[in-house]
Amino acid sequence: MTKWVYSFGDAKAEGKSGMKELLGGKGANLAEMSNLGLPVPPGFTITTEACVYYYSNKNTYPAGLKAEVEAALAGVEKITGRKFGSGANPLLVSVRSGARASMPGMMDTVLNLGLNDQTAEALARSANDKRFAYDSYRRFIQMYSNVVLGVDHHNFEDILEDYKDQKGFVLDTDLGADDWIEIVKRYKVRVQEEYGKPFPQDPHEQLWGAIGAVFGSWMNARAVTYRRLHGIPESWGTAVNVQAMVFGNMGEDSATGVAFTRNPSTGKKEFYGEFLVNAQGEDVVAGIRTPQNLTKIAREEAHSDKPSLEEVMPQTFGQLKDIFAKLEKHYADMQDIEFTVEKSKLWMLQTRSGKRTAKASLRIAVEMANEGVITKEQAINRIEAGALDQLLHPTIDPKAERKVIATGLPASPGAASGEIVFSADEAESAKGSGRKVILVRVETSPEDIHGMHAAEGILTTRGGMTSHAAVVARGMGKPCVSGAGSIRIDYGAKTMTVGPVTLKAGDIITIDGAQGQVLAGRVPMIEPELTGEFATLMEWADKVRKLGVRANADTPADAKAARNFGAEGIGLCRTEHMFFDDDRILAVREMILADDVKSRRKALDKLLPAQRSDFIALFETMKGLPVTIRLLDPPLHEFLPHTDKDMAEVAASLGTDVKKLAARKAELSEFNPMLGFRGCRLAIAFPEIAEMQARAIFEAAVHAGKTTGAPVVPEVMVPLITTKAEFDIVKAHIDAMAEAVQAETQTKIEYQVGTMIELPRACLRAEEIAETAEFFSFGTNDLTQTAFGISRDDAAIFLNTYLTKGIIPIDPFVSIDRGGVGELVKIGVERGRKTRPDIKLGICGEHGGDPASVAFCHETGLNYVSCSPFRVPIARLAAAQAALGKDLVSEA
Amino acid sequence: MTKWVYSFGDAKAEGKSGMKELLGGKGANLAEMSNLGLPVPPGFTITTEACVYYYSNKNTYPAGLKAEVEAALAGVEKITGRKFGSGANPLLVSVRSGARASMPGMMDTVLNLGLNDQTAEALARSANDKRFAYDSYRRFIQMYSNVVLGVDHHNFEDILEDYKDQKGFVLDTDLGADDWIEIVKRYKVRVQEEYGKPFPQDPHEQLWGAIGAVFGSWMNARAVTYRRLHGIPESWGTAVNVQAMVFGNMGEDSATGVAFTRNPSTGKKEFYGEFLVNAQGEDVVAGIRTPQNLTKIAREEAHSDKPSLEEVMPQTFGQLKDIFAKLEKHYADMQDIEFTVEKSKLWMLQTRSGKRTAKASLRIAVEMANEGVITKEQAINRIEAGALDQLLHPTIDPKAERKVIATGLPASPGAASGEIVFSADEAESAKGSGRKVILVRVETSPEDIHGMHAAEGILTTRGGMTSHAAVVARGMGKPCVSGAGSIRIDYGAKTMTVGPVTLKAGDIITIDGAQGQVLAGRVPMIEPELTGEFATLMEWADKVRKLGVRANADTPADAKAARNFGAEGIGLCRTEHMFFDDDRILAVREMILADDVKSRRKALDKLLPAQRSDFIALFETMKGLPVTIRLLDPPLHEFLPHTDKDMAEVAASLGTDVKKLAARKAELSEFNPMLGFRGCRLAIAFPEIAEMQARAIFEAAVHAGKTTGAPVVPEVMVPLITTKAEFDIVKAHIDAMAEAVQAETQTKIEYQVGTMIELPRACLRAEEIAETAEFFSFGTNDLTQTAFGISRDDAAIFLNTYLTKGIIPIDPFVSIDRGGVGELVKIGVERGRKTRPDIKLGICGEHGGDPASVAFCHETGLNYVSCSPFRVPIARLAAAQAALGKDLVSEA
Repeated sequence: MTKWVYSFGDAKAEGKSGMKELLGGKGANLAEMSNLGLPVPPGFTITTEACVYYYSNKNTYPAGLKAEVEAALAGVEKITGRKFGSGANPLLVSVRSGARASMPGMMDTVLNLGLNDQTAEALARSANDKRFAYDSYRRFIQMYSNVVLGVDHHNFEDILEDYKDQKGFVLDTDLGADDWIEIVKRYKVRVQEEYGKPFPQDPHEQLWGAIGAVFGSWMNARAVTYRRLHGIPESWGTAVNVQAMVFGNMGEDSATGVAFTRNPSTGKKEFYGEFLVNAQGEDVVAGIRTPQNLTKIAREEAHSDKPSLEEVMPQTFGQLKDIFAKLEKHYADMQDIEFTVEKSKLWMLQTRSGKRTAKASLRIAVEMANEGVITKEQAINRIEAGALDQLLHPTIDPKAERKVIATGLPASPGAASGEIVFSADEAESAKGSGRKVILVRVETSPEDIHGMHAAEGILTTRGGMTSHAAVVARGMGKPCVSGAGSIRIDYGAKTMTVGPVTLKAGDIITIDGAQGQVLAGRVPMIEPELTGEFATLMEWADKVRKLGVRANADTPADAKAARNFGAEGIGLCRTEHMFFDDDRILAVREMILADDVKSRRKALDKLLPAQRSDFIALFETMKGLPVTIRLLDPPLHEFLPHTDKDMAEVAASLGTDVKKLAARKAELSEFNPMLGFRGCRLAIAFPEIAEMQARAIFEAAVHAGKTTGAPVVPEVMVPLITTKAEFDIVKAHIDAMAEAVQAETQTKIEYQVGTMIELPRACLRAEEIAETAEFFSFGTNDLTQTAFGISRDDAAIFLNTYLTKGIIPIDPFVSIDRGGVGELVKIGVERGRKTRPDIKLGICGEHGGDPASVAFCHETGLNYVSCSPFRVPIARLAAAQAALGKDLVSEA
Repeated sequence: MTKWVYSFGDAKAEGKSGMKELLGGKGANLAEMSNLGLPVPPGFTITTEACVYYYSNKNTYPAGLKAEVEAALAGVEKITGRKFGSGANPLLVSVRSGARASMPGMMDTVLNLGLNDQTAEALARSANDKRFAYDSYRRFIQMYSNVVLGVDHHNFEDILEDYKDQKGFVLDTDLGADDWIEIVKRYKVRVQEEYGKPFPQDPHEQLWGAIGAVFGSWMNARAVTYRRLHGIPESWGTAVNVQAMVFGNMGEDSATGVAFTRNPSTGKKEFYGEFLVNAQGEDVVAGIRTPQNLTKIAREEAHSDKPSLEEVMPQTFGQLKDIFAKLEKHYADMQDIEFTVEKSKLWMLQTRSGKRTAKASLRIAVEMANEGVITKEQAINRIEAGALDQLLHPTIDPKAERKVIATGLPASPGAASGEIVFSADEAESAKGSGRKVILVRVETSPEDIHGMHAAEGILTTRGGMTSHAAVVARGMGKPCVSGAGSIRIDYGAKTMTVGPVTLKAGDIITIDGAQGQVLAGRVPMIEPELTGEFATLMEWADKVRKLGVRANADTPADAKAARNFGAEGIGLCRTEHMFFDDDRILAVREMILADDVKSRRKALDKLLPAQRSDFIALFETMKGLPVTIRLLDPPLHEFLPHTDKDMAEVAASLGTDVKKLAARKAELSEFNPMLGFRGCRLAIAFPEIAEMQARAIFEAAVHAGKTTGAPVVPEVMVPLITTKAEFDIVKAHIDAMAEAVQAETQTKIEYQVGTMIELPRACLRAEEIAETAEFFSFGTNDLTQTAFGISRDDAAIFLNTYLTKGIIPIDPFVSIDRGGVGELVKIGVERGRKTRPDIKLGICGEHGGDPASVAFCHETGLNYVSCSPFRVPIARLAAAQAALGKDLVSEA
């Protein structure tokens, strides 16, 4: 026979902490604390299975439930020595929800249940406090009528406010016992009017009403939304906890408080928390009275004149101290605790793993491992890899005031302040004169790269999490807020307007890329710290992980950052970013305008030395670590000027006709550039471009091999392959160039030629492609775009709707879509390995820095992931967690 | 032991017609004709296996070959009574290539082999014609030196021209025997100079040189290219045919000719061909002399004064007539024949299935089936389905002169003449005043639809085979030439310029959409004929095929055309085309500009009656046949005006601000519209659009069901699905609307809701999607775009390179890419059927009208294909051929 009810209290319990699925988190921990002999007000938990039964059986209770509840209630009466509904010594209970996963504030709670006209009077007597009793009664009526009977809050607020006006009272504390008695009377009249029946006086009727309401709240709109957003299955159901009430508001020897066993903000090993004398739990949260510190030292640090718990209730504090130690050791984690002191008697109301900042998380995990409380592996799994991001960038001082003027997407973490500039050129010249700027654009394009480099941060009014601005900013490790749609930019007037506020170029703003906020003025920052616990944990993670971690890096500065963050190579160097430098773009444009191979080669010859020196610097920085270099990828029109003015200037400097330039631009312009004349299609149409790049790579490899003494094995990557024939054509040009450079330099060059697998067809034909490709790097950005048919640049307008409606659980550009894109990657891996078992397999999309995607890469058996330098630590940790079998997916 | 050589002649042969793989087409047919007792000059065939051996063994011959060739040569000597290299009665031979598949003109041939200083003299004696002998000898030196020794043609041409200048001769016929003797002398000197060795006098050396050259020619550049273009494997190799020479140029009782057993142009059962008296085969082809007709009746029809073969050589003609009948019956197909008459003796040199026009093909197949020569199934398989296209549109009279002024892509078949107009509005107003026009645009957009309807044909200077212009034109059955890049259009001046030629609006041009040509002026046309053999064959095809054939039709006119062409339903009705009508576009724009749901609904209410009447007309035309209607698909910005002038006009007529219109347009504008805010994404963001469309569909279904008495079962299709969640949301709106209309009309509505599977992810998740989707229609256009990452609108610039370089065998937008897109479709079919075994599966991309793709659909087990109305007959025939197991893929 199914057991529906589990009792706890009096230092024993039928449940335990391992039974969260059945008892919910709160119920399991109350049982566990009872088992540990801690002072827990007795009570019982109605299982989640009862809730599941309730919903599968047209909102009815299972047969045995009523009897079990009555038996459990009798047990509580026995332990407390009180009687439910008794006119002499009444037992009052709280009725609280408690699901498997924490859903704070989403479901309903009823306190002080059991009060009626009779028991209120009895409570007044037993507590010797009439005001307390009738205040409790009116609170109960208010809460119960709202939660169970569906009578709106405002009814009760109106009555109370009217009464206070009538009496000339201001605060609730102005009301005495008789006032509350009058209020209770008026409340009951209003319930009768609104609900059509009198307020229930039978405590058992009250209890079943509350149990039904808690079950019912599992399906309320807030809870449904919360579950969808957090991926909590509806089928879990909630448990109901019925527990004897204890009161922290029974006088000066009573109190209530919350505490963390370590500092949740810094991770420091110290008690952290606050309490209020003569108060109920809700008062601590409500913030009407200023709570007091737990410890003397905390009080002193806070320069508070209100005594700490340690000082006013030294005995209780001593008891708490022991309990904290016991709980933390027992749960092997920092605990978040609620307690109440009723007439000097300490009661534990809740314990659970405490939420903490990333910084605290790191310190607690490392210290606990060093204390021997947990293993190093547990320490690794304790950190949410994605949260590390907070530690790798400057952030806004949490104590600082935030004047938010607009919000957008949290496109690249970190925060920065600076003068507003509206163009890349202005950003660059401001930087030149030592000023710090935020580049503000409707959207960015590859032409803005120099300005993005120069700026402290980037703000755009259009584009999503994977817009150009976002991707490039993340790559550079600069903060970016994208798609702040409420801002209107007027480039002509050099102003940005949000509602009534207009800011002009030169005004100071701050952006918080982690939260997607735009703030007025300059805001204090905190700098990141990469040593100490961070370094220790990374070291532990590296020992455990199986996946290699490389970085996407286009410049020596990127490469240096990547090495600092522990990258083991470069997984993607996008050569086109090198094409935008002022001294090169002219030659690039000359190349694009060339009428024939000969003049194209002439222009390319001008680019060769620059490309070569780029690669030399990159190879020298990486000192023999592998470097994957992708051949030119974007459509050529991206390199041509956009405005009429720029067109005229460029035409003049190229000594050509604006008309010719315009004609070529028109010829190259595309409806869907993402699906256009780019990638290997360029190398096939204009092999001389690939040849110049290959020559630059090989000449640089020879040079850097000599200067560093570490031989360079460049990995040349051909983008956008869909057929083996394409790959073979481009590879032949690369091989020929390698041979030429070997002959010219009399140096043997080791190298590999591989491809980006970034289109669905490439995954499907991987078996053929691997016949000649020596490595695959999955370009999951483009693979996501094509598998879903979603342009990441255009997705913002509908993707947010998709996320809020729960059509997709997470932005597929942020975390890899296992069901679609993931299957394509798996197909590619399987088929590629079939032909070439030792093929090197990596991923170089944005997903390389996302923990859930890293877990996918680990499972799929890739050799490495490559991500933005600033996400390398995240990838290292996530790879270790994946190797330890942590479930990173459901966490994401 | 492998047999390398097969002899034929004297009414018997070692080979036969079934041995094409071993003997090549020519060799097998020569053997077969010998077996049939026809007069074939004796000879032998060296097998393709010998060629394969040659290439797998470093260009060496297999061991037994030499002995077998000598034995076979001895056999020829015995039959002819001549001796190879004999100074008395020399045997001369031809050496010709002959592969399994015909590769006309691609490989080498040597005639008159065996001539040297001695045998030339003997030939002069035996033929009693010195001039003939030395003319033959010099031809042989020229041919052999070129083909075998690699001495360039121009050497010999120079010598001949110099000699003629020197002697004052003009024509070759001016030269006498002594002149040719002198020429031969000079030729030999030049060979010695160029080749470094004397011209080989040993006939056996000559023979082996020629055999080696034919094998070698299998790998020459022309042959390699031809094979790649026609999908002929290199591994097949070529056979070599060595055959005794016969001479049609031995006097007035000699002749040479070519003939078809039926008219290859019309298919009429009549002998068709031509001949020349006292001539060699090459003279007939060279066109220097005008050939004579075969039959008296043909001569009379041609008003020729030169006698027919029937008249000058009645006996030979009689012999030929019998042979033609025998061959056609034997091969059960119309034959293309070469013959030579040497001194009144008829020799057969070749027979093979004759090439023919689509029209002839149809007539011959149907007549032969009716004659009992072939079965109906064979008749079906005889027609190349794709070639039917020629019969379904007006075409340019083949006799007409063509003044080609530009070429583009053959985007939509048929031909049309008309005045040039440069805008859709002009096209419409010209049509209104009864003028016929060709709409000339850089590219077309949905806004041009009314102009495309009004025009006779469409010419664009940008865009590929699947550009908007091409797709829409094919749908309308109108000729279209797209991407004619050499034309420059000046909309302002209303002119189009190609090189030095400038045409202006109002000038007449003709476009040939089947060939992609733009012609000056008006050109005579031939109208299509859909009765007679066409109708008969279609009837036979319908009995055989398993696949249903529907049409893509957006208007009642389309639907009518579709039914005329035999469509069994509508597989795709694109509702957006209905949105562009003048009386609707304003409401559409109002809907797009609406700030909230209420005003959007208001605008949609204006569209409802129009949509409903569209659907009523469609349903009434289709009289109960199934109709699949796709909800609004294109991005909304496509409905907004483009130019500043239009913007101002539209803003005015909407009573709104240009600024607001421009802002909304900017908001909706996209980098990659193909991957943007379209398809079901619109229905999810603005459910009221889907609701209006669903209401229009259901109300129309109820109405048409009553007027026609045939109940309508509309199939509502949700586009661009990638997840089941998307589909379910849209389906819920559709279902709700169906319920509402049922309640309002008190009529039960049968309907289905399904989806287009047009994105890779949809194929992969088909198992889930099929849980609620009742049908899938594979949208292979978009599937090809996303699987390949190729925008069909932008592909022209590189796809042609891909085709010419052989990177892809065929444009994947024309014929489905089995290896990639095909696999995705198969995955979708398999997974969809797993969930819902009876799910209805179709295809509605452009591929539905491509024979090879239809074969794929048949194999993959789809229920139907849907294509442009004008391609319905092609699909019907291709579906029948696929059911009969015809290999439509290698044909494509």
